[in-house]
Amino acid sequence: MELINSLKWRYATKKFDATKKVEQSLVDQIVEAAWLAPTSSGLQPFKIIEITNPELKQKLVSISMDQKQVEDCSHILIFAAWDNYTEERIDTIYGHITRERNQPSDAYQSYTDRIKGIYLNTAAENNFEHAARQAYIAFGLSIAAAAELKVDTTPMEGFDNQAVDELLQLKELGLKSVVMLPLGYRDEKNDWLVNYPKVRHPKKDFLLKFD
Amino acid sequence: MELINSLKWRYATKKFDATKKVEQSLVDQIVEAAWLAPTSSGLQPFKIIEITNPELKQKLVSISMDQKQVEDCSHILIFAAWDNYTEERIDTIYGHITRERNQPSDAYQSYTDRIKGIYLNTAAENNFEHAARQAYIAFGLSIAAAAELKVDTTPMEGFDNQAVDELLQLKELGLKSVVMLPLGYRDEKNDWLVNYPKVRHPKKDFLLKFD
Repeated sequence: MELINSLKWRYATKKFDATKKVEQSLVDQIVEAAWLAPTSSGLQPFKIIEITNPELKQKLVSISMDQKQVEDCSHILIFAAWDNYTEERIDTIYGHITRERNQPSDAYQSYTDRIKGIYLNTAAENNFEHAARQAYIAFGLSIAAAAELKVDTTPMEGFDNQAVDELLQLKELGLKSVVMLPLGYRDEKNDWLVNYPKVRHPKKDFLLKFD
Repeated sequence: MELINSLKWRYATKKFDATKKVEQSLVDQIVEAAWLAPTSSGLQPFKIIEITNPELKQKLVSISMDQKQVEDCSHILIFAAWDNYTEERIDTIYGHITRERNQPSDAYQSYTDRIKGIYLNTAAENNFEHAARQAYIAFGLSIAAAAELKVDTTPMEGFDNQAVDELLQLKELGLKSVVMLPLGYRDEKNDWLVNYPKVRHPKKDFLLKFD
């Protein structure tokens, strides 16, 4: 399967070639993969912020532990999760689902009542954490899509989430940044990691079987 | 890109054909995709438990909100995250990395000191949550791999994590179950969801751009 080869090809790029841009049609496919990701109850509780603005990229450096990738890359995708599950958010997506599927408006009433009963009685912090996990599924799919398209990426958690949220005014949108994916093309001559083999735990320690 | 078509093809299977088994070589590739997933600092803080044992599958039904998929499927992959980050766990993977890369044993000393300084001063609960997020990246890649191989899956969070941990004795291994992926082949005639179109938030609401 091509996906396995792509996943072996990819690595966490430490140095991008700042002169190379990724074609927008490729970025669109990387976003599309995230958009298609499955999420719990289909709520899709996150958004993607796509950044190419040079000033914004530069401002991100100091609040991303001085990782130059956010400036040298072509595009940045920031995955930002809902800060909470709310009645309105649940109703919005299920309203959309019923219309798209030409179903009666109350088709999912008992289902949404049930999930509201859970989420509306759970602390915002825990709901956010659950939403963040869903964003990570999509994050994985974007990494896979980029690798398939031979676009380099740096999966990045090392940034000041609060500062990023302020810079992008995410709080006003009910979002909190969780993870970033700079996209671009590796600078092979200047990337210290490019030639190291990928290492994972031995399979015997990774996989347990109950046959 | 084939991946996009595969992601459109997949759906959360509600009814598996219990008579159909997935070839082991395909399951191995689905596990391989998860194994190759990037994780924070390369710690790979989770394991996969692969289950085909019929008695175990049957026992899982009642602790998985009676979702029959766990019994009717061919294989179940359970993603279980480290319950905490520890000095030993960090040293184990970095010992392995230095040996595999033929580097001096102290090649990552200052790096591992730094991450130990963070993780060993963070509550176990928060470290587990961080580890769980990493497992979700791998979970996404397994879903993608399965879709590429035209193997059906049901991404599942709806189970009693503690009961699953007890059944599989995961606590003794320092693991906590986070998410499950039954694998198999859809029972088209009896799956209510199979013919519904996939619905996501409109792209204009999903994607924000800063050019």
